[in-house]
Amino acid sequence: MSYSIITISRMFGSGGRTIAKAVAEQLNIPFYDKELIELVAEKSGFHPEFVEERGEHSPFTTTLGYAFIGRDHRGVSSEDLLWQAQCQVIEELASKGPCVIVGRCADYLLRDREDALHVYIYAEKSYRAKRIVEMYGETDVKPEKRLDEKDKKRRVSYDYYTGRNWGHPANYNMILNSGKLGIDETVKLIVEAYQTLHS
Amino acid sequence: MSYSIITISRMFGSGGRTIAKAVAEQLNIPFYDKELIELVAEKSGFHPEFVEERGEHSPFTTTLGYAFIGRDHRGVSSEDLLWQAQCQVIEELASKGPCVIVGRCADYLLRDREDALHVYIYAEKSYRAKRIVEMYGETDVKPEKRLDEKDKKRRVSYDYYTGRNWGHPANYNMILNSGKLGIDETVKLIVEAYQTLHS
Repeated sequence: MSYSIITISRMFGSGGRTIAKAVAEQLNIPFYDKELIELVAEKSGFHPEFVEERGEHSPFTTTLGYAFIGRDHRGVSSEDLLWQAQCQVIEELASKGPCVIVGRCADYLLRDREDALHVYIYAEKSYRAKRIVEMYGETDVKPEKRLDEKDKKRRVSYDYYTGRNWGHPANYNMILNSGKLGIDETVKLIVEAYQTLHS
Repeated sequence: MSYSIITISRMFGSGGRTIAKAVAEQLNIPFYDKELIELVAEKSGFHPEFVEERGEHSPFTTTLGYAFIGRDHRGVSSEDLLWQAQCQVIEELASKGPCVIVGRCADYLLRDREDALHVYIYAEKSYRAKRIVEMYGETDVKPEKRLDEKDKKRRVSYDYYTGRNWGHPANYNMILNSGKLGIDETVKLIVEAYQTLHS
């Protein structure tokens, strides 16, 4: 097997985005984050902020009011349209060559590509709670509640659009516990797997 | 964090035992398998074959007849006594120095040891079914059913004795999909994590 694409799924606060960025830097391949958001915004007509905020939501994770306003006469929600645009952009980006893509069900969208290394980053809640306070500061909402809310949105959206279970080993090649291994070692293991199997 | 012990939990047919043996050989540290069984047999008085066969079972996974015969007047089953002997032997072996231990809830027993690297080996059913036929030959029972039965016993036993969920990311540092990564690469990643963090 020869890898060229890396998809990184991650629990909120696990350091997944930081890890993905470092992996891409070490391998000297593109890391699609802001660029992905801009391309989806361009394709869909939605505002980049909306794409960033809602790109990992399903119609069931929005507020009730929004869910109604956001549906057209065929019952298609804004999230559904966003999902379609995201699918196209991710497939286009992956067809360009080696890259790292974070979240947004990329592991599912690229599930038939033999050259995709699918990684899921996990960490205990205590580790993630500490990390989000360090990274994003405190808010009125307790960090544990912020984690639960964000992960629930990601999980519901993933399960809704893919029909699979978020975080299930069957979907990934590696599940790494960044809280136990540390960020640097997690990066190293992904780089190692990619380099060995990339040709 | 500095690692000295590696525990490897595995789905039946995932190649976990082969991987554990190769990891121990490459790191030149003991691999406790037959020796563990003999020590448990010695400590418990059970026959080594019984220890090997039942060491990853709980009272709920034995046949009904056996479960009744195997209980003493206090309601303690043979599996419970075996579990106690296994706990002691695993703790003793781990206290001797670096080693690799396969299965037998070692990840749970050594959960408080900061120097233990806990690995879970996963693979899809189709990969495992093919592998057990290659490794152990065909039987009257379909390979998929053999996998289900063996994994159910391991899962029920693990959950019963540990109060945790077998295969849940929280229990491990790494979950590696040997079917997708290949046996050699899986070995390499474990060796890499151990060597980097071992001092």
